[in-house]
Amino acid sequence: MGKFLVLRDAYGSIQVIVSDDNSLVQNINHLPYETVISVTGTVVARPVGQENKKMKTGEIEIQLEALEVLNIATPQLPFSIREYNKAKEALRMQYRYLALRFPEMQRNLRLRSNVLMKMREYLINNCDFVDVETPTLFKSTPGGAREFVVPTRHPGQFYSLVQSPQQFKQLLMIGGIDRYFQIARCYRDEGSRHDRQPEFTQLDIEMSFINREGLIEMIEGLLLHSWPPELSSIKVPFDHITYNDAMELYGSEQPDLRIPYNIQNITELIKQSSTLMDKTDFEHNTFGSYAVVIPNSQDCLINSLKSQFNDMAKKQFPGAKLVQEKVTGDSWNSKLIKLFSEDVTKNIADKLNVKEGDTLFISFGEKADAQQIVGKLRVEYTNVLESKGRKIRSSDYLFLWVVDFPLFSPGETKDTLASTHHPFTQPHPDDMDLISRDPLKVRGLHYDLVLNGSEIGGGSIRIHNPALQTKIFDMLDIDKSQMYHLLEALASGAPPHGGIALGLDRLTCLLCNAQSIRDVIAFPKTMEGRDLMSGAPVPISSEEMEAYHIKTINV
Amino acid sequence: MGKFLVLRDAYGSIQVIVSDDNSLVQNINHLPYETVISVTGTVVARPVGQENKKMKTGEIEIQLEALEVLNIATPQLPFSIREYNKAKEALRMQYRYLALRFPEMQRNLRLRSNVLMKMREYLINNCDFVDVETPTLFKSTPGGAREFVVPTRHPGQFYSLVQSPQQFKQLLMIGGIDRYFQIARCYRDEGSRHDRQPEFTQLDIEMSFINREGLIEMIEGLLLHSWPPELSSIKVPFDHITYNDAMELYGSEQPDLRIPYNIQNITELIKQSSTLMDKTDFEHNTFGSYAVVIPNSQDCLINSLKSQFNDMAKKQFPGAKLVQEKVTGDSWNSKLIKLFSEDVTKNIADKLNVKEGDTLFISFGEKADAQQIVGKLRVEYTNVLESKGRKIRSSDYLFLWVVDFPLFSPGETKDTLASTHHPFTQPHPDDMDLISRDPLKVRGLHYDLVLNGSEIGGGSIRIHNPALQTKIFDMLDIDKSQMYHLLEALASGAPPHGGIALGLDRLTCLLCNAQSIRDVIAFPKTMEGRDLMSGAPVPISSEEMEAYHIKTINV
Repeated sequence: MGKFLVLRDAYGSIQVIVSDDNSLVQNINHLPYETVISVTGTVVARPVGQENKKMKTGEIEIQLEALEVLNIATPQLPFSIREYNKAKEALRMQYRYLALRFPEMQRNLRLRSNVLMKMREYLINNCDFVDVETPTLFKSTPGGAREFVVPTRHPGQFYSLVQSPQQFKQLLMIGGIDRYFQIARCYRDEGSRHDRQPEFTQLDIEMSFINREGLIEMIEGLLLHSWPPELSSIKVPFDHITYNDAMELYGSEQPDLRIPYNIQNITELIKQSSTLMDKTDFEHNTFGSYAVVIPNSQDCLINSLKSQFNDMAKKQFPGAKLVQEKVTGDSWNSKLIKLFSEDVTKNIADKLNVKEGDTLFISFGEKADAQQIVGKLRVEYTNVLESKGRKIRSSDYLFLWVVDFPLFSPGETKDTLASTHHPFTQPHPDDMDLISRDPLKVRGLHYDLVLNGSEIGGGSIRIHNPALQTKIFDMLDIDKSQMYHLLEALASGAPPHGGIALGLDRLTCLLCNAQSIRDVIAFPKTMEGRDLMSGAPVPISSEEMEAYHIKTINV
Repeated sequence: MGKFLVLRDAYGSIQVIVSDDNSLVQNINHLPYETVISVTGTVVARPVGQENKKMKTGEIEIQLEALEVLNIATPQLPFSIREYNKAKEALRMQYRYLALRFPEMQRNLRLRSNVLMKMREYLINNCDFVDVETPTLFKSTPGGAREFVVPTRHPGQFYSLVQSPQQFKQLLMIGGIDRYFQIARCYRDEGSRHDRQPEFTQLDIEMSFINREGLIEMIEGLLLHSWPPELSSIKVPFDHITYNDAMELYGSEQPDLRIPYNIQNITELIKQSSTLMDKTDFEHNTFGSYAVVIPNSQDCLINSLKSQFNDMAKKQFPGAKLVQEKVTGDSWNSKLIKLFSEDVTKNIADKLNVKEGDTLFISFGEKADAQQIVGKLRVEYTNVLESKGRKIRSSDYLFLWVVDFPLFSPGETKDTLASTHHPFTQPHPDDMDLISRDPLKVRGLHYDLVLNGSEIGGGSIRIHNPALQTKIFDMLDIDKSQMYHLLEALASGAPPHGGIALGLDRLTCLLCNAQSIRDVIAFPKTMEGRDLMSGAPVPISSEEMEAYHIKTINV
């Protein structure tokens, strides 16, 4: 018979056998789990019938000859490494060094390391990029409300931790580094937002003398090169879609192409409904109505779910209304008939090709809200169906470029403008004459990269002309004195340039098929920004406060 | 004749020729320097006799056919890219994007990028390391007086910016990542210290199941692999020296082996001098006397230099005295005879083999101070001689491992101890019995890597036994409650481990033969921590102060 123990290291585990007549049996009996040992022995085939097919090393074992205890573990660890799901996340974060021993975390961190290395190889060895480190202690950007500040020994003066190397990478282009990249640490103080971290990592890229198409092609080559070979492969070029089409077909600027149902524009049909249109005071030229049909699913639309969907629509998209219908039996459409009239309802059903068993979601009202309601239900109802065991999404990795975003969005107050992305984005060359005349119609040379419904990157061709940049700052009411160094730099001989940033925490999370970005980060913080292992953040000493010329308030 | 212009990009420059009858001549006449253009033309050999041998592309030129101005530069730039030395460093930092266009900066940043990439390749592809990103927002370390603090939205609670990933890398070993590295951003608030930056970069490495020799060998392989091929080559293994021998032979823990003069211990000779020893109250068992002879150099020891050296010795090493002699003529040694007696002086001259034309420095008093005085003069006087055109140092890159440092140093107050490096260093196994009995005699398993007189890295085998770590914390009077998570982690099954960190700013500076680390950093700050381009640090808004629950004082 004998005793056995399982020896684990970073690369796997193997069974060690001690025969009963071996004096080492006694030592083994008293060893706590997780004790660090060194063994000497002979690798042998396991006896016939005792192989373990679930174990990579299940056909062999080690016959123990000598054993050295290198560091004994305490017998009562907070959780066992063999039962992954039993420890809550908070406990796994408090004892992160134990959680890192789980095979999943080992795999995630190694996959992340390998993908990042492949990216560097592609950029440096294949494309002649220069890896340049830029500062994280910098000056706050105007209106940068989410920036951490760092007091200094200069009384009353603070650094800000950069949200991205945006200014530095443009300055590098102006400085003649024509192909820059950096795997950059960035900081954003977002309070408690789901699945965000106060510090995060992005692959930051900028190139001179490049256009949108060139940049997109470069990123596709990069992802193809660094794609983990164990995942299902990807094809380049990726599909492109305009922002308007994305909203029209998916009700989202981050479409998940794995879901086989598109949303449909039924605005013209609904406009025929005098029962609806006469009763309501919709703005005619921004009115829209959209629908999505999810086949063979009406049994899942239970009442609690319906009311949850209704609440979501009311809260997040108050400009439009939602109707939810289970298509079953003859009178399934009675509510629709009452709302829209019999004719209009029949036309809708015909156009959407509605069948017994389907679930039908219809939204109408402010076009943008109407699009997003059914766009969101397209995804959320799919999640519900998949949680019940139905397979809807393919297991492919479907990338998509979203282009032609509006350059400006309406500002917080009337008649003001905001940047849809940031104030350095180059306007679309075809829309230059609209900048003064009809700015909200101007498209920007911005591009987002979406993977399976998540935005994993975004970038743009930048403004390189100082007069145009000045004009855009003015239109956005940005204090130019704060950005004088950039304007001066643009006037010093700035090449045309553009770039992109990929969010590596999010991308790695998708590649690892992990639940949360916290599962692809070695030492993550909680949603409240706490490190549960050390307790950070913590109070500091009065000497430190004095050195930095600060006092705390509201404590 | 025609007109010409020089076209420059990130990779070099080339001459463009326009014949006088070409209508483009007019355009060229009015183009300010540094304007960004795109040209079309034909590459031709320059006419015989007009080749420029100083220019890489000096044998060819482009005959211009078309020219497009992509971005015109302002005619009055703060300095010209063609006259590197004319702009002071402050101006080059203010207009950093212009300074980056100089060929030296282009070369430095590209060399840095290439060396770092080679390091990554070696570690990941050759040695199976895992690149793990660790947080920079963390908890202050006990007594970490030089840590920047970051206020949070939790009233009165602060992160600290890490000085190094020390705790995280040990926790990664405990978490089963057995070979970790990271090119890590670190932060240290040192006020204005020469050639330091508030943020800096280190190659951070940690390995499990490794001893000192294994780690040293790994680093030697790494440097050999990543060494720039254009520099004179290096040989491994590097020399080793103990801390005691380094002080004895070079009077420094960072010996510059390119200087061919060693210091010499003349303690026993000096102790024969009753004229000296009877008059003074030196502590007999810590008394030491050292000398260094610099051949053929006495003419350079002018009086102003002598008094500068005397001031340095008095200020920095007050425990010992310095005598400086120019060996010339017969009575050169009269001061020595008066000080030490005729016999002793003759013995010294014989032992040191002093010759006409030499310069002789002798120090005596507290041994450590005496060593360091002549150790420092060995380097500084060499600098003086080299500034006068004498070639003393070889152009080799001479690495040296310094080992066997004392684990403890005397603390700030009597009978207290401090860590020579840090409290996680493993004591030398041969000195374990001295820990309680005679702690200042205990050597640590620490190693420093020195290149040409600069410390470029340091590391150690760490303590993995929680009881020993507790004992060391107690001896150092460190608050264990602050380090509880590490002690718990050591008790959870921690492998024996060790690591190292290489300072990449310093190393790259030596590889680039640059004057300052600021010349190998894209956007450096001044010694006062200022970014001269943006003006950071700057005041922040009252909204921001409120959000972070702070007030400024002393403003």
